[in-house]
Amino acid sequence: MHISPESVWQNLQAIRTTAPLIHNITNYVVMNSTANALLAVGAAPVMAHAMNEVEDMVNLAAALVVNIGTLSDGWIAAMQLAMAKARHLNKPIVFDPVGAGATPYRTQTAIALLSANSPTVIRGNASEIAALVTEGARTKGVDSTAAPEEAIACAQALAATCNCAVVISGAKDFIVSTEKILLGENGHPLMTKVTGMGCTATAIIGAFLAVNSEPTVAAACAMAVTGIAGEIAASKAAGSGSFPMHFLDALYNLDKNEIESRLRLTEI
Amino acid sequence: MHISPESVWQNLQAIRTTAPLIHNITNYVVMNSTANALLAVGAAPVMAHAMNEVEDMVNLAAALVVNIGTLSDGWIAAMQLAMAKARHLNKPIVFDPVGAGATPYRTQTAIALLSANSPTVIRGNASEIAALVTEGARTKGVDSTAAPEEAIACAQALAATCNCAVVISGAKDFIVSTEKILLGENGHPLMTKVTGMGCTATAIIGAFLAVNSEPTVAAACAMAVTGIAGEIAASKAAGSGSFPMHFLDALYNLDKNEIESRLRLTEI
Amino acid sequence: MHISPESVWQNLQAIRTTAPLIHNITNYVVMNSTANALLAVGAAPVMAHAMNEVEDMVNLAAALVVNIGTLSDGWIAAMQLAMAKARHLNKPIVFDPVGAGATPYRTQTAIALLSANSPTVIRGNASEIAALVTEGARTKGVDSTAAPEEAIACAQALAATCNCAVVISGAKDFIVSTEKILLGENGHPLMTKVTGMGCTATAIIGAFLAVNSEPTVAAACAMAVTGIAGEIAASKAAGSGSFPMHFLDALYNLDKNEIESRLRLTEI
Repeated sequence: MHISPESVWQNLQAIRTTAPLIHNITNYVVMNSTANALLAVGAAPVMAHAMNEVEDMVNLAAALVVNIGTLSDGWIAAMQLAMAKARHLNKPIVFDPVGAGATPYRTQTAIALLSANSPTVIRGNASEIAALVTEGARTKGVDSTAAPEEAIACAQALAATCNCAVVISGAKDFIVSTEKILLGENGHPLMTKVTGMGCTATAIIGAFLAVNSEPTVAAACAMAVTGIAGEIAASKAAGSGSFPMHFLDALYNLDKNEIESRLRLTEI
Repeated sequence: MHISPESVWQNLQAIRTTAPLIHNITNYVVMNSTANALLAVGAAPVMAHAMNEVEDMVNLAAALVVNIGTLSDGWIAAMQLAMAKARHLNKPIVFDPVGAGATPYRTQTAIALLSANSPTVIRGNASEIAALVTEGARTKGVDSTAAPEEAIACAQALAATCNCAVVISGAKDFIVSTEKILLGENGHPLMTKVTGMGCTATAIIGAFLAVNSEPTVAAACAMAVTGIAGEIAASKAAGSGSFPMHFLDALYNLDKNEIESRLRLTEI
Repeated sequence: MHISPESVWQNLQAIRTTAPLIHNITNYVVMNSTANALLAVGAAPVMAHAMNEVEDMVNLAAALVVNIGTLSDGWIAAMQLAMAKARHLNKPIVFDPVGAGATPYRTQTAIALLSANSPTVIRGNASEIAALVTEGARTKGVDSTAAPEEAIACAQALAATCNCAVVISGAKDFIVSTEKILLGENGHPLMTKVTGMGCTATAIIGAFLAVNSEPTVAAACAMAVTGIAGEIAASKAAGSGSFPMHFLDALYNLDKNEIESRLRLTEI
């Protein structure tokens, strides 16, 4: 399977043309930054977490993003309800197990949500993905303590259990399904010095799922676009402070040439 | 009725001189960005939503901003309490019905809050304003599906019912009361590619209400200043990412010359 | 007691080398900006406030940051639990009484949390510190109505009661213990035009407490580094909008030369 620069570009253009509504139930830290990333990529974000409205919002949305950072019990119930509704309506779900492996609460919550309703794509760092499969795997807060490569077997197991695609993001990104593994090598180390870049990738996966029903393709396009925008931003930023601005500008202005010259995405 | 550049400038100077305390009960997405916008315009923002303190905070504040984005039941009760207190103390209230028309929960909540306590100004996009008046009007997430012009009759009805001014913001801004309609034509399309610019306009209306008791004048000045800062920012920004920074800088540095040369505000 | 530029530098380097996990229970307004400040200074932030996980997260963390902005009852219980756990594990706690003195709810909550578990450092503006000691002291929303100097006696009383260091931040910063008073004179007025710079200083104190067990030294280093980054940012910013970006860049890039040439920290 080969995903060409042309294909990434066409999927991006589809987002820009249709401006799909992406419903986010996400953490307090990244609500503003992921909303702006979704706008920059061409989508229309909405944040809504009340039990009284999540089903209605899922009904309006083209994709659902569920992210368990800054978790609490009231939100878990809303996540469960929204995911069930999305499954029922056959709408794509992307799930981000932020901090799974750091505390039992996060690990157990993530596993319970996944057990109740399979998402279309799961994205996490290596520690988080491992924690969903291997009891006792540990995460440092919300940061990985393992290299992406180490979690591939876990990702494959998770993909099989949940019947979904799994993205392990890090210095390298692995997009894993039961049938194949894609390796994405776009990105830049400065992305780890800004909060919520993983959550941003997750949200952008949601945007691509809204225009492409093949989970691994949508996820691979999203990781590529995120990584390429990160590279462009890193080349312009004076530090971690100016990076987010340049990242969003790069995402907003991303053109076919940049994708063609920078895309590093292969099947392994 | 004519609002001169001199008048806009004097109202802005009044904010900068008195630094009025603006109490915000607003959504998670924009808390940081609206606080910074209020600081940039010269006001002093405070965010507080606990039932135990909203009345005390209203008592300290010069104006109350209520915004129903990222709504949940606990917050609605606090909004109701704060609005009742502000009415009792005769302090101005600006109300933002974010996402009214998208879900019944938002529409019904907005209508219930408005019915219990009339605000001084309501600001929304065309879909949101229409949804407060016309059963079945629809909003795409938090984005309008209608042009501002289409909601003028709804705004007039709402102004009459709530005895307040109503701002329909969009490519053009209409400031509507039972007696007149002002047309504001400042602003830039890039403002739609950044999350929370409408919420920012709402918060800035709060700041102007703190220094000017005439609702349509305060709202018109706020929309003008927001739009002019948006134009300046758009002329400097490389994309949606750098826009917010330039917007706040423009707001912070806004001078009389810029207002004189850019103001587009007329009675229609 | 003299804290040399070399000492500030070595403490900063210790953060960058060890990337300590800093557990924040903080307000919605600053979650993103303080997470990015902690990353820029070299630490690893995590935000977690659920009763079900705060004790586990404290167990993983090197320091706990508790900040009462945007307070509500559910969060107070989690703060109390986390602070008790940190005390039990002998981990440093920094406490930020945002808005104490503005409403009885904030003042009483801050006093109750401090009474239950003494933190290692308390940081607030002059009004907030005074409100923790003097009944009837008033705060304007979250902004001080008093000069830092006026709260020194209160800070000394508080330091004695809580057996901790107390930082009064403002145009000048005073780091107060029962034994000494340090005066920090780094910083810039533009820092008051950006929301959450005080909260950022508090979070950075948490990072320094993770690598230095002497409260006044850790707090003084943090205030110095925050103030120096603020000065550098102010020299580059075009207004309050571009300040935060330059602040984070300055923090991220801060080198020994800048510290040596700018540090203004003396015992008085």
